[in-house]
Order: sequence, then structure tokens, then C-alpha cells
Amino acid sequence: MTVMRPLIFMDPFPRTEAMVLTHDAEEALRGMGRLVTHFGSRAPDELVESILDEVAVIIGQTAMDRARLDRAVNLKAIVNVKANWEPNIDYGYAQARGIHVLSAAPAMAPAVAEFCLGQAINLARGLVAADADFRAGTERYGIAGNGTAYSLFNAPVGLIGYGNLGRALVPLLRPFTDQIAVHDPFLSDAFLEGEGLEPMPLDDLLPTSRFVFLLAGATSENEGFLTAERLAAIPEDASVILASRAEVVDFKALLGEAQRGRLRVAIDVFPEEPVPVEDAARQTDNALFSAHLAGGMEASYARIRAMMIDDVRQILAGLPPMHLQRAEPRLAAMARSR
Amino acid sequence: MTVMRPLIFMDPFPRTEAMVLTHDAEEALRGMGRLVTHFGSRAPDELVESILDEVAVIIGQTAMDRARLDRAVNLKAIVNVKANWEPNIDYGYAQARGIHVLSAAPAMAPAVAEFCLGQAINLARGLVAADADFRAGTERYGIAGNGTAYSLFNAPVGLIGYGNLGRALVPLLRPFTDQIAVHDPFLSDAFLEGEGLEPMPLDDLLPTSRFVFLLAGATSENEGFLTAERLAAIPEDASVILASRAEVVDFKALLGEAQRGRLRVAIDVFPEEPVPVEDAARQTDNALFSAHLAGGMEASYARIRAMMIDDVRQILAGLPPMHLQRAEPRLAAMARSR
Amino acid sequence: MTVMRPLIFMDPFPRTEAMVLTHDAEEALRGMGRLVTHFGSRAPDELVESILDEVAVIIGQTAMDRARLDRAVNLKAIVNVKANWEPNIDYGYAQARGIHVLSAAPAMAPAVAEFCLGQAINLARGLVAADADFRAGTERYGIAGNGTAYSLFNAPVGLIGYGNLGRALVPLLRPFTDQIAVHDPFLSDAFLEGEGLEPMPLDDLLPTSRFVFLLAGATSENEGFLTAERLAAIPEDASVILASRAEVVDFKALLGEAQRGRLRVAIDVFPEEPVPVEDAARQTDNALFSAHLAGGMEASYARIRAMMIDDVRQILAGLPPMHLQRAEPRLAAMARSR
Amino acid sequence: MTVMRPLIFMDPFPRTEAMVLTHDAEEALRGMGRLVTHFGSRAPDELVESILDEVAVIIGQTAMDRARLDRAVNLKAIVNVKANWEPNIDYGYAQARGIHVLSAAPAMAPAVAEFCLGQAINLARGLVAADADFRAGTERYGIAGNGTAYSLFNAPVGLIGYGNLGRALVPLLRPFTDQIAVHDPFLSDAFLEGEGLEPMPLDDLLPTSRFVFLLAGATSENEGFLTAERLAAIPEDASVILASRAEVVDFKALLGEAQRGRLRVAIDVFPEEPVPVEDAARQTDNALFSAHLAGGMEASYARIRAMMIDDVRQILAGLPPMHLQRAEPRLAAMARSR
Repeated sequence: MTVMRPLIFMDPFPRTEAMVLTHDAEEALRGMGRLVTHFGSRAPDELVESILDEVAVIIGQTAMDRARLDRAVNLKAIVNVKANWEPNIDYGYAQARGIHVLSAAPAMAPAVAEFCLGQAINLARGLVAADADFRAGTERYGIAGNGTAYSLFNAPVGLIGYGNLGRALVPLLRPFTDQIAVHDPFLSDAFLEGEGLEPMPLDDLLPTSRFVFLLAGATSENEGFLTAERLAAIPEDASVILASRAEVVDFKALLGEAQRGRLRVAIDVFPEEPVPVEDAARQTDNALFSAHLAGGMEASYARIRAMMIDDVRQILAGLPPMHLQRAEPRLAAMARSR
Repeated sequence: MTVMRPLIFMDPFPRTEAMVLTHDAEEALRGMGRLVTHFGSRAPDELVESILDEVAVIIGQTAMDRARLDRAVNLKAIVNVKANWEPNIDYGYAQARGIHVLSAAPAMAPAVAEFCLGQAINLARGLVAADADFRAGTERYGIAGNGTAYSLFNAPVGLIGYGNLGRALVPLLRPFTDQIAVHDPFLSDAFLEGEGLEPMPLDDLLPTSRFVFLLAGATSENEGFLTAERLAAIPEDASVILASRAEVVDFKALLGEAQRGRLRVAIDVFPEEPVPVEDAARQTDNALFSAHLAGGMEASYARIRAMMIDDVRQILAGLPPMHLQRAEPRLAAMARSR
Repeated sequence: MTVMRPLIFMDPFPRTEAMVLTHDAEEALRGMGRLVTHFGSRAPDELVESILDEVAVIIGQTAMDRARLDRAVNLKAIVNVKANWEPNIDYGYAQARGIHVLSAAPAMAPAVAEFCLGQAINLARGLVAADADFRAGTERYGIAGNGTAYSLFNAPVGLIGYGNLGRALVPLLRPFTDQIAVHDPFLSDAFLEGEGLEPMPLDDLLPTSRFVFLLAGATSENEGFLTAERLAAIPEDASVILASRAEVVDFKALLGEAQRGRLRVAIDVFPEEPVPVEDAARQTDNALFSAHLAGGMEASYARIRAMMIDDVRQILAGLPPMHLQRAEPRLAAMARSR
Repeated sequence: MTVMRPLIFMDPFPRTEAMVLTHDAEEALRGMGRLVTHFGSRAPDELVESILDEVAVIIGQTAMDRARLDRAVNLKAIVNVKANWEPNIDYGYAQARGIHVLSAAPAMAPAVAEFCLGQAINLARGLVAADADFRAGTERYGIAGNGTAYSLFNAPVGLIGYGNLGRALVPLLRPFTDQIAVHDPFLSDAFLEGEGLEPMPLDDLLPTSRFVFLLAGATSENEGFLTAERLAAIPEDASVILASRAEVVDFKALLGEAQRGRLRVAIDVFPEEPVPVEDAARQTDNALFSAHLAGGMEASYARIRAMMIDDVRQILAGLPPMHLQRAEPRLAAMARSR
């Protein structure tokens, strides 16, 4: 009797071959099973249908409704190589079947955390303006040039959201400050306290933080929860870093606070991307912009590949995955992609 | 018999009253003794002479040669509120007399370390250019915009100098990487290994570091030791942060490496300050400039005041100072101020 | 329409009321729902049947086969307040239904880790013998009395098993040593390396460890895997601490190694408990015994109560549990209780 | 002209050759200079006189009064390889001459800290009694046997003294608790707070600590400062570990508290050593004894040798010592050896 090697189906669009199937990654996956791949678009239905009854692991965001799951009798895992949960999977039914549904969100988090820390220091210390002033010949030296500079050391910091991003950021903040407050409605106070953090209601956190990191994912329930009124509660001259999803905040109000000079803000995500070229928001004062650069870099894709390979190996050996994030069916269903 | 309260003489120029004698600081010092102050210039000789036989603590960089030290029979400490050692003190003789000679270098170090980390992330992640691109409408989103970005996570890092600056920087780097090599000719390998660092000869460190932090103080012996040839050994596209003294490096060669696009550099200190307005160096590509802003900010002066007050209190109580740095006579003599 | 408050059923035998339902715990649970309890034995079938169709949370190890799970249409969680997985639950079917099945193993781990560290120091430093010698008047002072003493500092340490116990122990070992090797067949090398540990095959770990911590749970597959031959590979005079399950080791061979003076051993768990009074093993030389005292103490029950209350609150609010361990159906089925 | 290699004089009694001059250590020292040694007693005066005018480094506690220091024109360092300061050196004059006077106290501290932690766990968890009970066949299993057990996790801990011992102990305690209070009259509150510790007056610390570590050195001023009255303020059933000097405590009162069952105590040092064989104190209940075993073990001597070699190398190279403790003349004079 012949035992077939497990079938691994890779359908990772919009991830490209360069992102998820480098030479080393391909070699590692081929060492574990037969590999069928499709790049450049979502795999056509015929291809998906042709592998369903054999497939052991799906890598990508192939639509998997209940009917398909029923046919995929050998399926052990769906490894979404993005950081979000798409609505094209029946999460509850996959769990009922004991199929691991995993996302690569933890792999993107270190790069985003590094970005957040860098922008926090930029805002507080004025490093971007310092370079511009020097090039313009208008610099002032030492304390004279540091009139508006402040420091992350010993500052009260507030995190809104303590998922993958928050967990990656906190270790970077610890050497600076032990005043780290967190608002995350999905987590209990006792859990946060056990992490050495101070759980805090949103309306207490905002007015007491010198740095505010907006790290909450967008759900069907939290759109715009950082209203203009709430932004107005953040103390004068605080630094606000937005690095998860623009939908969580009243974006115009945030820009307005910067333009008025009441807040310093760093913004990496926008309600509409690309931002229209003529959008006046581009010239907002007291703001640092970046074009959704926080997470998507080669170092993150290398992490995705490493986590994916290691977890597929565990799963094919009948062991639990160790790195990627498991879908909580209820939360996955609530998360909304665009 | 009347016991006189100890005389504290404050002569801190170029430090100003706002820097070292805020209301709280004055109150604290007056609680420990009589206070005589002079601001705006070095104290005139007559004033110094008038307090010499009584003075218990000098705060500032009053010239104290052997003759003055001999007359200052009650002197217990000279608290230099700057970060360097001036040549106007007979360090050896002060030590022989058991007089503490202290500098505020440790108080400046956190701000400099924060600056170094911020610039390292700026160089590696391209955050300054990202803002400029966005404002110009030439941004590219996500991985397309991150073609040259790299990360501090798991990167090999080299520190040149492990004095106050290095000691403040290492805790900020630890969450990113455990590959931290140090070259410091004043420290033994066993000591550095005990700190969890890898001691490394300069000529091994330079070609193996993705980030190089130039943190060495200038001495009478190390001028320009980072020669053009040594800079050429740093790997292509590495990030170099200069935050201690411009004298330690072949400054022109460093700018040249940036201009050619071989290195990314951040520079906070210059051979001549202020830099001439028309200096072409100001427009160097692949460089981030700042005008000696790394350490001299209000947060640092607050630290100086706190350390100064606490150490003066210890010394007047006959106890050892806990915060400020003690002069090593041989090294203090070698250190050269400008 | 009346909304019924959720029904919480507590059937925790052999846990007692004093262990899991102190006054504060009861108040907390009653704040979340209606509470039905049974102590002193497993709840009788009639009682279980009477609550099945309403119960939202079961606290304890009530037998829950598929038929009962089918009837428990409102059931959201089974919170096993012990540290093991009993075979009286259909784990796969519970998962398919989306019912959380949780164990309190993480709550016992800190106490066990503290115990392990204490016994490791006792074995290495000879503290138990030191007290006996002093009381007998046969003590020798200082270095003369420390002829066989060694230290955990900088020692190579091997952990067999890196589940809850290992994860609680490692932070206690870190200040002593950075040479921590782990053998755990359920975990990937990449995961262990990410934790700062050295993954090592068993047959490499045993001969290179000065301290060996036996922390593996008993499964249907690993009985006696630490054979006499493997124990013989542990270096002369090493310290071995057994704190999880006696079944994983050739118990007689372990005692023999101690009796011969080849190993120092600490044993907290036994193949049969209570140990027969006349058992000669009790007088083994070079051994420290304790009567299954590592985990079961009031501090651990306080942790169980806190974790249980917080996780029940999360689950009733539709949020994921944060503290207790989730059953992996395949591993839970493999785990064997006695 | 011939340049003589520096002369290193080793006169370490009561340290023995085995402790301080192993083969490797000898090779290392001979690599740095000429070596003259005397073991088994303090070096006779003739020998000392014969090397005085050439000696560069003295390793040991050779009497060095002002007259001898005056003759030792090449002397750079006195490396006391014990942990205390003897009164046979003119500390102030040595400092005036710029001669480093160093002690090996930091080298002993890790072993003492390990001992303290082990005894704290023994006292709280009852590990010594557990072994005795098991051997006697009177053990009780699990929670039944843990009626009086408590844990270091989350316990309030008080340290009396934060010198070398306290600094080595704190990192071992951190994974257990963040409630660490310190009383040390030589250190400022701001310094202790900067170390993440809570400075506390003695009379506040004693009644609020579940574990009390007595780590203060004996000085001419602090004999018996832990009076019977102060010991009575420690809470019922707390654990007290005495590991520095018996002179700091009312020793009889401490034994009495243990005998009465009011405190649990671990004692490593005694007012008189060796303790008379018939001394009734040996049978004190609720006490763990050891015969001055906390620090003096081979691992500590290995550390002394490593620190000594590295610091001598630094000093002979004109660089500051990195490891050993520098004498503070005033404190060294106050410290009293027996």
C-alpha cells in the first residue's frame, strides 16, 4: 500500500511568490509534502475543487465555506499568510472540524512595534524637523534647539489595543518607562495586571497619557470609537501614533488636532489608500506621515515564512502550532477587512 | 560654640540658573547649607577667594589648582555639572585630599541613548524620507515603499565606547537584538562579557556590524582613530550614528561615505559648532543631521539637578555619592574639552 | 420576557469547598450567574442531568460524554480545576461544539517551580545536611564544610518537558545561568530558540547537564522513557529533580543512582502514593524526599480561584479565556491520569 | 636600559594557595609580572620589607601603614582577597597616594545570594522537615502536608543592607516578587528607587515583611541594632535569613523567636565560631543552621581569582579596575573585622 505524502496548497494572493515562497521556503515545504501553488490571483475554482479531497494544508485565503470544508476531509490547517481574518471562511465550522485556522499577524508585529517606537521618539524629540532645520541653516544648538523636546523616559504611555502589536511594543517601551496603561475591551484587568500593565478605561487613559499608541484592529463594532471629543481629551502637546487601522479614529479630527498644534501625530494608515495626490491632509503641520510602511517589509515576510514552515511541520506531525495566531471564531467573524 | 552650616558654592557657567537652580533645587540645597551663587560667567577670582576657606561643596567648574585646593580646607566635593572633565582642576591632588570630583555625564546619557535609538530606526526604516515622500505625493505603499528598509531586530550592532552613553543605550537595544559587540580600550574583555556584551577589536567590529554607534569620548590619544580606511570597512548600507564627539572620526570621510550612498549616517556633533551656514556638508545625502541636540534638553537638566542634590546630601552626611561619575585622575587628565 | 442569568455548576471533587469556593470566590461567581454546587463526591447523575439543559459553565471534572454534551445546549465552558485531563470528557466533540475545555495546570506551576529551584539549591549546596551536621555537632566551617558544594550559577541545566512547569521555572533560573537546554517532543526547535532556550535531543541533554529537571507529564506513550540506561548517562554528581510524574522515569534506577552516590536526587512524586511505610526507598542516601508537596498549597488554590473567576467572566461575556490552559483534543486524549 | 617587569606580591593568608593561586591563576599573573608569594601565615616582616620599594601590586592583607606606603613608591594596588576591610591599612593615605585598595566582597556575593534564596524557600515551604517526615514515615501528601507552607511569590520582602550581598540577591528575588523594600543607612532613597527598590525605615520594614534578609555588614556603629524589640516587630511566622554578620542582631533574641515558634529563621553566622559543641542553641526549633557555608566555596574562589587577575591586568595597564570593590576610606575604617 502506498501512503501519499500530504498535499500542501498555496494560494496566497495578494502575497506574492517572492514574499512567501523563496527558494528556502519552497525546499522546506517540499520536504514535508506535495506542493501545489497558484500566484498572481486567487486560485480559480477548478484548481481549488481539484485539490479539495486531498489537501492537508491550505496556505492563503482561499474561500472555504462549509461545503468546501465538508469535502476537504484531510484538511488539517488553513494558514492565512496575512494579518487579518477574511469573511470567506466558515470559522465556526472549521473549528468544529478541528481544523487549525491561523493568521500571520504575529509575524508583522515586531516591524510595526519598531516603527511605533521610532515615530514616538521622532515626535517627542523633533528629529525630523532637526534635519530640515540643519539643511536650511536655521538650526539652534543644544538646549536652545530643544525648547519643545521631551522624552519617553518615565513618561506615562497609553496603549489602545493589546493584541499582537501591543505585545510586541511593550518590551521596547519597558526600558523607558514603567507607566504603561492599556485599554483593550477583549482582555480582563487581571490578565493585563499579570503582564505588568495598568488596565485603564479609555476615558481615563486618554487624558493621562503623554504618548498614545493606537493599536486596535478594526471590528464591526469599533469604527470611529476615537471620536473628536475623545481626541480632545488627550493632553496638550502629547504624541499620538496611529499604526493599526484608520477606521478606529475620527481621522479628520486627528489631523485637525495636529494642524492646530494641539497634538503631535504620526500616521501610517489612511481611510483610503492610496491617498489622493491633491489631498490637503498631506501638508498637515505637526504630523509625520508614512505610506502603510509600518509592517510590510522583507523582515516581516521572512518571519511569516519561518513561522509558516515551523507550524506546518508541527501540524503535519500532529502537534499544536507554536507561532501563528489561532482564529477565535467569534472574534474572527467580528473582524472586518476591507 | 556655633556650628556653621556647610557652605555650598555654585559657579556653574555655562550652565544657567534655569538649568541647575530651579526653585525646588534651590530649596533643597538651602536645606543643606548656606548657598553662594554666581551665574552668567565664571565666578570672579575675588569671589572664589572669599569663599575658599569655608567652602564644603563647589558646584560648577571653578578652576581649582593645587594652591586653591590647599586653601580649601573644608572642601569635600567638586560637582562639575557638565559631562566633561576640564583641565583646570588638579585631579590627582584633589583625590589625594579625599575630595570627590564628580561629573554629570550619567545624567545626559539617557537622552543621548534615546536619540541614538531614534536615529538608528530612522536610518534603517527610512522614516524621514517617508514623510517627505508623502508630502511630495511620491509615496509608495507597503512593501513597494519599503524596498530599502531594514530592521534593528536581530541585527548585529557595534558600539564604539561603553561609557555612560553605551551603558544607557544597551538596555534600549536589548529587546531588539542580542548581538551587541563593544570596542572600548579602557575596559577588559571579562568585564564586558559579564555585562552580556561581546568585546571585539575595532577592526573586527566594523566589518561585522549592521549598526555602528560612535559613543567614544575624545581624549588626547584617540583623535581621528576612525580613519577613512576604517570607515571603508563598515559594510555597505550599514547605519552609523555619531553622538559623542566629532573628533574621534575622520569627519569628511564619514560624510563622503554617506554622499556616495555607501553608508547611512546620523550626525549630532560637528568639528566646529555652529557649522558655517554655507557649508556644503549640510546637503549631504543619506544623512540625518541634528544640532548637538542629543543630550542637552530639559529632561537631562532635571536629572542633573536630582543627582546633584542627592549626592551633595550624601557627601555632607559623610557618605559616598551614588549617582554622578567620579573622576579617575589619569582618565580625567587625558580627556580633552574644547 | 425574562432573561435567565447563566447557570454555573460546580462539581469539583476531589477539590474541596475550601479550595475552590472561598467566600470571595462564591461572591464573585454569584455576581455572574446562578450557582449550583456539589462537594464531597462527584455529583450524582440525577443532579447533573437536572442542570444539563441550562448549564453555561461547568467547574470540575463532571463526566461529559457526547450524549451529555448534546443535551447541554447552553454550555460554553468546562473548567477543570485540576492540572490533568481526565478521560471522561469527549474532548474532540466539545471542541467541535465550540465549548472551552480548560485546566488549572498553569495555576499550580509557580509553586512547583519554586519547589524545584529550592531543591536544586538544596542538592547542590547541601543545605539539608548542613542543618543535620550542625545539630549533631559535626559541622565544619566555611570552605572546609563546602567540599562537595556546587552552585547553580553558570551551570548547564537541562529541562525535560517545557509545559506549564518549565515555563514557570525558566524565569527563576535565568538570573543564575544562560545555559538552559530543553527536550520536549511536542515543541519545535524554532519555538524553543525563540524563547531563548537551547532545544536538545534527550540523549545529548542528559550527559551535558549539571542539573536535570524532570518536568514532563505522563502520557500513554512516554511511560518510563527515562530508563536506567539514560539515567546512567547523566554526569557523576549531577542533581536531578523529579517534580511532575513518577511514571516518566525508571523509579528504582533513579533511587539506585542516588543510593550509590552517583547522583543527587530530589523526589516529590512516587509510583504509588502513599508510599508504603516500610518501603526501604525512604532511607535512600543522597536523596531529598517530599510527599507530593510541590504544587498543592494554598497559594496555588488562590491562583486557581483567581484564574477561574476571571476566565468564567470572560467566557460569559463572549470573550476568550486568558489564564487557564485550553485542551488540545489530541494531547488531552493522550494524557493519562491515574 | 632594562625595564623591570612589575613585581606582584602575594601574601593572602588566611587564603591558601589552592584558593587564590591555582595553576591557571599563577600562569596569568606570571604573564603580567614577577611573582613573589608567601602562604601559610602572614608574610614575615623581612620579606615584606625586601619587596617594598619594588612592589607594584600586593595581593593579600599585608599590614600597610603610612611608613610602609611611603616606601612603596611603585605600589599601584592592594588587592585584599577577602570580603572585609582590616584595620592594618592606612586607607586614607593609600587613597591620597592614588593606590587602589580593593576587596573581593563582590566575588563572594553570588554564592551568599544563592544560599539566602535557598534558605528562604526552605523556611517558607518546609522542605527540610518534609524530608525528615518522609524518612520517619509520618508524611502527609499534597495540601494536607502543606498546612504551614507559604510562598515567596508576591510576598513582601525586606532587605537590611544593600551592599554586595543585597545587589546579588535582588535579581534572584525579582522573578518572585516586586515588593522589595530596603533599609540601608549608607544609601539615599533616590538611589534605591532608581534600582527599582522601595527605601524604607527599619521600623517600617520589619513589621511589613514576610521575608527578612539580614545582609548588613558589621561596623563600629551598628552592633546589635536588630534588638529584641525590633525582632518582636517582625510579623508572626515570617522567615528571617541571617547571612552577613551575627553582630548586627541580638542573637539570643533571634533564637528565642524561633524556639517560641514566632519566627522561622535560617542562620549561617554566629557570634562565636566554632559554636561550642554543647551549646543548647544547636537544637533550636524552627531554625535552619549552617556553619558559615554561604559564601566560602570553590565557586567563590574561582570568582575571586578571575576578578583579581582581570583587575590586576587593568591596573598594570594604567586603567581602572572593573570588578573588585574599592575601599571608601571612611567606610573601610568603620568596618570592623574580628
